[in-house]
Amino acid sequence: MEQEEIVELESNIVECIKERNVKSLRTIFEDYLIQDIAEAMDDIKEPNELLFVFRVVSSDYTADLFAELTDEQQELIINSFTDTQLLQLIENSSNDDIVDSLEDMPANLVSRVLKVANPDQRKEINKLLNYKEDTAGSIMTTEFLTFLDTDKVGDTLNAIREKGKDAETIYTVFVKNNKRSLVGTIELDDLVFAKDGQSLSDIMKVEFASVTVDEDQEEIAKLFKRYDLNAMPVTNKTGKLIGIITVDDIVDVMSEEAAEDITNLSGVGNVEDTYLETPVLKLALKCVPWIVILMVLQVFTSLILSGFQAEIAKFAVLSVFSPTIMDAAGNSGGQTTGLMIRSLTLDEFKRGDGKKVVWKEFRVACLVAGMVAIFAFCWLMFEMSVGIVKCDPNMFPSITITDANLLHVIVALLVASTLFLSVIVAKISGVLLCFLAKKLKRDPAVMATPLITTIVDIVSLVSYFLLWTLVFGKIVGLA
Amino acid sequence: MEQEEIVELESNIVECIKERNVKSLRTIFEDYLIQDIAEAMDDIKEPNELLFVFRVVSSDYTADLFAELTDEQQELIINSFTDTQLLQLIENSSNDDIVDSLEDMPANLVSRVLKVANPDQRKEINKLLNYKEDTAGSIMTTEFLTFLDTDKVGDTLNAIREKGKDAETIYTVFVKNNKRSLVGTIELDDLVFAKDGQSLSDIMKVEFASVTVDEDQEEIAKLFKRYDLNAMPVTNKTGKLIGIITVDDIVDVMSEEAAEDITNLSGVGNVEDTYLETPVLKLALKCVPWIVILMVLQVFTSLILSGFQAEIAKFAVLSVFSPTIMDAAGNSGGQTTGLMIRSLTLDEFKRGDGKKVVWKEFRVACLVAGMVAIFAFCWLMFEMSVGIVKCDPNMFPSITITDANLLHVIVALLVASTLFLSVIVAKISGVLLCFLAKKLKRDPAVMATPLITTIVDIVSLVSYFLLWTLVFGKIVGLA
Repeated sequence: MEQEEIVELESNIVECIKERNVKSLRTIFEDYLIQDIAEAMDDIKEPNELLFVFRVVSSDYTADLFAELTDEQQELIINSFTDTQLLQLIENSSNDDIVDSLEDMPANLVSRVLKVANPDQRKEINKLLNYKEDTAGSIMTTEFLTFLDTDKVGDTLNAIREKGKDAETIYTVFVKNNKRSLVGTIELDDLVFAKDGQSLSDIMKVEFASVTVDEDQEEIAKLFKRYDLNAMPVTNKTGKLIGIITVDDIVDVMSEEAAEDITNLSGVGNVEDTYLETPVLKLALKCVPWIVILMVLQVFTSLILSGFQAEIAKFAVLSVFSPTIMDAAGNSGGQTTGLMIRSLTLDEFKRGDGKKVVWKEFRVACLVAGMVAIFAFCWLMFEMSVGIVKCDPNMFPSITITDANLLHVIVALLVASTLFLSVIVAKISGVLLCFLAKKLKRDPAVMATPLITTIVDIVSLVSYFLLWTLVFGKIVGLA
Repeated sequence: MEQEEIVELESNIVECIKERNVKSLRTIFEDYLIQDIAEAMDDIKEPNELLFVFRVVSSDYTADLFAELTDEQQELIINSFTDTQLLQLIENSSNDDIVDSLEDMPANLVSRVLKVANPDQRKEINKLLNYKEDTAGSIMTTEFLTFLDTDKVGDTLNAIREKGKDAETIYTVFVKNNKRSLVGTIELDDLVFAKDGQSLSDIMKVEFASVTVDEDQEEIAKLFKRYDLNAMPVTNKTGKLIGIITVDDIVDVMSEEAAEDITNLSGVGNVEDTYLETPVLKLALKCVPWIVILMVLQVFTSLILSGFQAEIAKFAVLSVFSPTIMDAAGNSGGQTTGLMIRSLTLDEFKRGDGKKVVWKEFRVACLVAGMVAIFAFCWLMFEMSVGIVKCDPNMFPSITITDANLLHVIVALLVASTLFLSVIVAKISGVLLCFLAKKLKRDPAVMATPLITTIVDIVSLVSYFLLWTLVFGKIVGLA
């Protein structure tokens, strides 16, 4: 739906609530998709208004609506519901939706929900709540269909028609043996196309992807992508089926993980809530550590520059180009880590590819460094000859050279050769750091990015000033 | 499957091929998942070996295997197949898989495939090939099930059992009226739970998400996530159903888009193939433009630094801290664009949220700027007092101040106040640039990142040197 339609829907709903217009409100829930209704309602923060909606609209809709509301609205509702209303809501919701809502709620509301739920559901919710965040356990649901491998296709289809309504998906059916171990999966279409009298063991797939309950959600998403799955079984350590993960949850995981990659690459760290829901102070505290860490790491740059203050004082044009060099080399390293993070995210590298990658990136680095150095030489010659950067022998009493053009060539050569070295070092360090991060099981976006900047800054400044003092400075006549 | 198992599978397959062991090879295809087999085979580049596999293994498997092979292998196979073999492959593959393979192939191979295909399929493939990349048309399939709204549930289920095998999904059934316009969708579970005698129009959902054929794939992924869809109809401009998109294709789209975000943020641009498949020169050419553009944009920094050469020559310690300032401010701006890109990717902002966001980020900016400035002051005082950075009045004959501690305080204050201003400017520009990019329908990661760096560099250097010449320089006794 377009934003304009949402705005219109919002004013319709608000009006229905204000005028207690039950009939129109019910029509809205029949006519619109629940996600759009939830978005249109997300500015309603009066408990009475929310309660009115939940009271008059059919419970077919309200459990789904609840799952789509904002954290704040969910808390308001749980706070203001009677026990009976709460029980009805919990029974109509799927356990993983309830757990999703509870995860962000204050403890007193969580215990209120658990108190009201019936014992079976309480046990399930409790179990799901205790799984570590971002693991299979935390995203799985416990509502699924299992059958025995000796069951017949016809009976299974009948059972699905009867019991399927409570399951999170009926598109994948799980098959266990008489020891309650998971032994196969059947896609609903295979079941539909099979003959009624066949046993499930005849048509089930015995090779299927499954994960244990503590598997990381990012890895699970990769499996869904690789095997084009609709649902995946989750087992405990002994191979017993304890839950399933459905593809719609994986779509959410993927978008979460992509968002996390973006903030990690920008040095903000993981932001759980939406931007507007996160308090100002919390956002600031997400930002400051990274800036402070990088500032501390800049100590090396400061140390080097401080040591070369005398050279800079004699030939200040050196300080004009140091940011250009550091940025270009830093960006080159960043491009390499970007490419590596992409490939690692897409699981492109096989065991033993490490050497191939380093050798390839070395060749890329030489090419890039060569092109960048040549461009830099030409660009600097241009900047100095048209006077964008002033570099005239008269400005620097300590040098003996007198020809401005020659001086320009020397400075441009100094910068170009520094760049050539720094870009190669930057790109190779980029590869190595990403592999190191991977080996240490750290996120390369978090670990490699600050280190690469620091390493590259040091390498480029040191080569810049060493090349100057040992080679080019001597040519222009500085001791 | 773990990497070790893939390696083992690889040597098994290679051995079967070498020994022409048809029986074991067939067993492997029965026992393993096709994606794992394809990965294990991805080093096999001998046409004869590939052809052997395709000849002896059942066509139930080979069409799926073909879709999973590398581009290079697919080209080899199409090159070496006879017309009959090729026809069989095409008929067993789904049209969107064939099109996926053809999109990256040389024109002569594409026309070979089109020549061999039967007229109907050729028309479909041709149509799919002509849709713009990354649009609904390019990812949809034309193999789906439609029924009339007057059809009965029982007949529909029977028809699905008969015709469903050729459809890409049977989990969503599409309903059209007698004018061939799409009027509803039915999930298979609703069909399974309905009574045989009901009409489809009784149970179909008339509110459903659909897209037109030129919709961008990223937007489609957002709709799948929002509405928890299994499949989505694609219509032409007149509302006729022309294709469907299934959730497994969307999982691929999401991982592609996430990878693109990563490379965009690193300034490499979109890389289509895997890292190892992309030629060295192509990778280098992806990297160089960005480095060159940023180097050209650095002209402003160079211009400013060049203009302040005289100040730097007199007080070289100024050049020690300029990278620290530019980096810290640049990183702060980058954090803001990161947060904004995340929120825009997750579609968090509604119309009219613009002002709220700017105001919020302004408060965040003040907090961050304050904390960073205070930290910088303390850190610089430390660096100078322990001598990491040498800053002694004797080093600078032009200044009149003689107390080293006082000089340290003045320099630290200069840097801290520059940082305070620059961080605020950086973060506010970050928000504004992202919104501008969004308004111009550009990717903020591509557009905002270089501009923010440049703007921040200019602002921080100008404030640094202006604060120095107008305020702090005067205090230390420089004219």
